[in-house]
Amino acid sequence: MLEQLKQKVLEANLQLPSYRLVTFTWGNVSGIDREQGLVVIKPSGVAYDQITKDDLVVVDLEGNIVEGKRKPSSDTPTHLVLYKSFPSIGGIVHTHSPWATIWAQAGKGIPALGTTHADYFYGEIPCTRKMTEAEIKGAYEMETGNVIVETFRFLDPTQVPGVLVHSHGPFAWGDDPYSAVHNAVVLEEVAKMAARTCHLNPNVQPIDQSLLDRHYLRKHGAHAYYGQ
Amino acid sequence: MLEQLKQKVLEANLQLPSYRLVTFTWGNVSGIDREQGLVVIKPSGVAYDQITKDDLVVVDLEGNIVEGKRKPSSDTPTHLVLYKSFPSIGGIVHTHSPWATIWAQAGKGIPALGTTHADYFYGEIPCTRKMTEAEIKGAYEMETGNVIVETFRFLDPTQVPGVLVHSHGPFAWGDDPYSAVHNAVVLEEVAKMAARTCHLNPNVQPIDQSLLDRHYLRKHGAHAYYGQ
Amino acid sequence: MLEQLKQKVLEANLQLPSYRLVTFTWGNVSGIDREQGLVVIKPSGVAYDQITKDDLVVVDLEGNIVEGKRKPSSDTPTHLVLYKSFPSIGGIVHTHSPWATIWAQAGKGIPALGTTHADYFYGEIPCTRKMTEAEIKGAYEMETGNVIVETFRFLDPTQVPGVLVHSHGPFAWGDDPYSAVHNAVVLEEVAKMAARTCHLNPNVQPIDQSLLDRHYLRKHGAHAYYGQ
Amino acid sequence: MLEQLKQKVLEANLQLPSYRLVTFTWGNVSGIDREQGLVVIKPSGVAYDQITKDDLVVVDLEGNIVEGKRKPSSDTPTHLVLYKSFPSIGGIVHTHSPWATIWAQAGKGIPALGTTHADYFYGEIPCTRKMTEAEIKGAYEMETGNVIVETFRFLDPTQVPGVLVHSHGPFAWGDDPYSAVHNAVVLEEVAKMAARTCHLNPNVQPIDQSLLDRHYLRKHGAHAYYGQ
Repeated sequence: MLEQLKQKVLEANLQLPSYRLVTFTWGNVSGIDREQGLVVIKPSGVAYDQITKDDLVVVDLEGNIVEGKRKPSSDTPTHLVLYKSFPSIGGIVHTHSPWATIWAQAGKGIPALGTTHADYFYGEIPCTRKMTEAEIKGAYEMETGNVIVETFRFLDPTQVPGVLVHSHGPFAWGDDPYSAVHNAVVLEEVAKMAARTCHLNPNVQPIDQSLLDRHYLRKHGAHAYYGQ
Repeated sequence: MLEQLKQKVLEANLQLPSYRLVTFTWGNVSGIDREQGLVVIKPSGVAYDQITKDDLVVVDLEGNIVEGKRKPSSDTPTHLVLYKSFPSIGGIVHTHSPWATIWAQAGKGIPALGTTHADYFYGEIPCTRKMTEAEIKGAYEMETGNVIVETFRFLDPTQVPGVLVHSHGPFAWGDDPYSAVHNAVVLEEVAKMAARTCHLNPNVQPIDQSLLDRHYLRKHGAHAYYGQ
Repeated sequence: MLEQLKQKVLEANLQLPSYRLVTFTWGNVSGIDREQGLVVIKPSGVAYDQITKDDLVVVDLEGNIVEGKRKPSSDTPTHLVLYKSFPSIGGIVHTHSPWATIWAQAGKGIPALGTTHADYFYGEIPCTRKMTEAEIKGAYEMETGNVIVETFRFLDPTQVPGVLVHSHGPFAWGDDPYSAVHNAVVLEEVAKMAARTCHLNPNVQPIDQSLLDRHYLRKHGAHAYYGQ
Repeated sequence: MLEQLKQKVLEANLQLPSYRLVTFTWGNVSGIDREQGLVVIKPSGVAYDQITKDDLVVVDLEGNIVEGKRKPSSDTPTHLVLYKSFPSIGGIVHTHSPWATIWAQAGKGIPALGTTHADYFYGEIPCTRKMTEAEIKGAYEMETGNVIVETFRFLDPTQVPGVLVHSHGPFAWGDDPYSAVHNAVVLEEVAKMAARTCHLNPNVQPIDQSLLDRHYLRKHGAHAYYGQ
């Protein structure tokens, strides 16, 4: 079942080391079939170069394993909360990519400092609040999803396709598993440039709304004119 | 038509990922045939490893497509302004290379802090002013070219073959598409070293005029003595 | 003798350049056979791509060469002190990996600033005190081991599988030579992210105990639930 | 003539891009035959992957071309001053390697902050004074050598096998062309770690003399005990 989605999720997981987003097994990609309400996700703690399609795990939106002989990623409950709360997304990626992670560890959102950012993220990439002791000791991975959703209560996850979980690292998403990885790569590159920009000019301010609009909207929406 | 120029533009575009100047499709190179007044440029949003000579677009200096079945780079109007205003240049490259981009995001020109810089750029690599809301909402890509030209009103583009567009990223140019890419590589390397030098010594000053002269002029002009 | 252990030690040494932990010969891995009380270690100053199993040196816990025609690593006495003092460990690695080394040179332990750290190190990765002139002029490499052991007098080396030697560099260890290298890779990655986090937010504080517990314990101990 | 030395100089030049010390043609290696008083050096401005043994240039200590159809490196006069003033050295390398260059641009010597430094350089790697306008406008490349020699008037070039030329970049040397490149690699690595250490701990002090002695002398001199 879900052969095509599995193929995408497999390839998207293999892109993580290619794009240097992961050390060891520190990242996972999932994809969803919205019609069937089923999610395909990486198995927990398996090296990328050893994963086959048969190692992928199929779960329903309540986390029940529907197919697969492996344990799913320990972050599965986070993915499921996001799929349930953000109906427009089709793929999710979580990594500890180093530049995005330092913003998460610093507890700061990444301000939109240039057009590279504006081409993909329509404003600051937010950082969640710190999770409470109760959340951490409770259903931790599900609560991680909840704190992300809380962070987006006034944000559109389609326009800001990523987030930093405080003291942890980034999640990114997209239409499908490939675009989720694409956005994770951009997030990492933007995080790197923003950190270095702040070192070079500690008083730097986010770009003006008009420049943010121009760049985001030339790539997204009805009036986009970038690409073929 | 323009087979030789197309070959150069194609190869110069492929150098962008080789020199690690680009992520995804974040960069483009063009070249001009001055006699015919025609520009060859990368198609918009096409991955480097998929571009063939047939994908390149030929436009005239007013931006009319003369040959090619693809849409040209969305930055084409910027290239055209530069070709019209800087008659000595034969190739242009735009990227979001990360070190140059942080200077652009910081809104600062790159001072000449050493002989590496002086070997290629005869003084500071300037950063444009911020563009106005009217410019951004208007013919944005053309206005990007105009603000570069304004920045060079007292500068010789042959002696300073690159610029930073405020909040955006670098443009570089040269005699032909190859030398434009060559200068873009130098700009990125110089930007990296200048940022790190400023961290190490926040009070660093530009090098003296005599050292700037010696290094620039040993590689350029009538009395050059570097190379074969 | 010890063919299997030699194979592991050889491969673990070869992993050092693969993981970019070493320049030239700046690192060594050893492994111990606890039953026989014998340690296999890299020969001193031999390039990784030239080491064969026959070049490895077998020493007893007093440092006597039991087998091998090469001189063992000059750091051998440090390894032996650690094996004698930390009975739970089976492999040790020493490198001058650059990010860990800057923390050692700065004389600072690496605080637990995020979950990446907490997944492997149950609290700060400590830096030893400076060694005294007497220790440096005496049996220096053995004293290096002693100052590490002193640093761990209130710490469990299984829970904190690495250390920074002041003004020198990192040592890491694990169940066997492979896991020692694995922990050295993590230490380097964590050191990099911690340094950059401190630059981005000079007031950053270590993560809360509950988050440290959750991440460390989901990977280690009786209630671990990460992996297959 | 000098076939063996030419082979060494060729290979040592090719090591510069392998060790990522150079961009384009920004570096050169030479070697000397002390008996004949002849120096073999890279031709000026020729790409590394195109140099053959026939492109190398043989000059005497006064700079007269003795053999070769190419122009020698424009830095040849600097090399010659060093060979004449430092009779113990057999090979010289000049690069613009980025981390060493930022110390040169900052006008600061690299303090001995750890044992990696002490293993190769017996104390601070000095930075020359700024050159005067007269020196720059005069026999510039020869004066570059002179200012290095002046910097070493109280230093032993065998014990400190490298220097930073103010506002320019590093020179390193050794017994032969290979060891010169080896020292250039170490200088770059040490420069990187020292810069980052200073960021992490702006009050860091050089290591104690006893630690400097221990590490330098365990690798050099009569009582060395590192290696086979």
